[in-house]
Amino acid sequence: MVEGNESATTVAVRRITREGAQQRDDRLAVEEPMEIRVGFGPESSRSARSLSITMRTPGHDFELAAGFLHTEGILERPGQVRDIDFCGPAAPGRSTSNIVRVDLAPGVELDMARMERHFYTTSSCGICGKASLDALHVKGLKPLDSPGPRLARAVIHDLPEALRSGQPVFESTGGLHAAALVDEAGSILDVREDVGRHNAVDKLIGRRFLDGGTPLTEYAMVVSGRASFEILQKAIVAGLPMIVAVGAPSSLAVEMAERFGMTLVGFTSPERFNLYTGHHRIC
Amino acid sequence: MVEGNESATTVAVRRITREGAQQRDDRLAVEEPMEIRVGFGPESSRSARSLSITMRTPGHDFELAAGFLHTEGILERPGQVRDIDFCGPAAPGRSTSNIVRVDLAPGVELDMARMERHFYTTSSCGICGKASLDALHVKGLKPLDSPGPRLARAVIHDLPEALRSGQPVFESTGGLHAAALVDEAGSILDVREDVGRHNAVDKLIGRRFLDGGTPLTEYAMVVSGRASFEILQKAIVAGLPMIVAVGAPSSLAVEMAERFGMTLVGFTSPERFNLYTGHHRIC
Repeated sequence: MVEGNESATTVAVRRITREGAQQRDDRLAVEEPMEIRVGFGPESSRSARSLSITMRTPGHDFELAAGFLHTEGILERPGQVRDIDFCGPAAPGRSTSNIVRVDLAPGVELDMARMERHFYTTSSCGICGKASLDALHVKGLKPLDSPGPRLARAVIHDLPEALRSGQPVFESTGGLHAAALVDEAGSILDVREDVGRHNAVDKLIGRRFLDGGTPLTEYAMVVSGRASFEILQKAIVAGLPMIVAVGAPSSLAVEMAERFGMTLVGFTSPERFNLYTGHHRIC
Repeated sequence: MVEGNESATTVAVRRITREGAQQRDDRLAVEEPMEIRVGFGPESSRSARSLSITMRTPGHDFELAAGFLHTEGILERPGQVRDIDFCGPAAPGRSTSNIVRVDLAPGVELDMARMERHFYTTSSCGICGKASLDALHVKGLKPLDSPGPRLARAVIHDLPEALRSGQPVFESTGGLHAAALVDEAGSILDVREDVGRHNAVDKLIGRRFLDGGTPLTEYAMVVSGRASFEILQKAIVAGLPMIVAVGAPSSLAVEMAERFGMTLVGFTSPERFNLYTGHHRIC
């Protein structure tokens, strides 16, 4: 498993101010498609199936693939993975391919029913947020049964700044979402960045998944932007009891946090934050 | 065609500051799934097919459905639509359903090949940004052949503030993306908001599409966040020659703007902006 890391690129840009214009170089976050393929079946007749294509920022691609397969409910344990590698020739201008193949361990079969990307797609006529939450229950997601971490208020106020200082690519490009794993003391353990909010989360969770560190019951996740349904769903699968968002949560995110026993914090800044659910984990 | 509009909701929240905590009400942007179904076939044996489920903010749902079908290359003219309506019972707590059915006019058939959501999914082994752009050409997208609008620098500096003042739901929730259509003088013609960046764009374009106003060759589009591949792709289908982003563009967005003759502006503020491509439309 060797990964490339070409997350930012340089382009010529005309920088316009009220005073005039000047030519300069600008750093941009790279956005490229990545295809996730899964190899499975008996050794003698191995099959590969394409599961997903996502627009992502290159770097930590194997974590992204593993995290995606875990948070979408396809993989439960790292032992189900035999190998992860790039497949096919390098993409133009980069050192690695945009196709990642995850080979499942012998005997591990794909649960095809779970491979539907929109697994919250529900009943025939009557789709609604409530139905979506019910569908998650049906899929086997359960409310968290661990007490989880307890974070002091002062720790939470400092998280946005700590997250930002751990975002090297954002610093240069101004264009990336980030997700970080933090412990009870507020220390940032890992940070991942991506043009896609959900990809940053998958990369973060994927690293721990591959290391055998899931479920993440002792940690909180900080996200640079808003907290939506999709982010909460991934967090619940990974066993994360707390999400601290720099931005706003959606209505469904709050309902979901309530339903699954999570702590949800939003609009976090040095001066204030909003505590939506799970008050007992804030001290 | 009657639409509901329940874009924001109220929840109780504990507002924490350095000085203490207080209970208050907080307005949240609503996030709910919406399913788009398409009805087609001869009158005697009408079929309906589910094309997409997206997490969106309720409101302007018919525009979202029409805009999605247009920007994904499924509908070219408003005359291809016979009717748009909700299908099924109202979602809990709201007055309308989360399923929108677009009935095609008699004789209009669905081009199934175009219905693949990820139509930029390309060659067998060698997926890359360049291949994605090539695929758009294959799909019939052409570089813009209209000169498009010319916007003065001073007009561009003022667009973020103009956009914000046209965002009623953001003002109350702080949690929505927005897209606006502006003319050469910088007047905001329409604004649409959504928890999903691409949905705000589809709603904006969908309104004009239904009114027979596409292609949008005389206008620019302002977006509240970043400019990504997906946003550019939708703009190109709708014939929009200029995108002004308050946030950063991705690398692929810049390549795409270059390739298709668009003007792309990023990091727009009253003090400065970056002009990536299409200098001739800025005066």
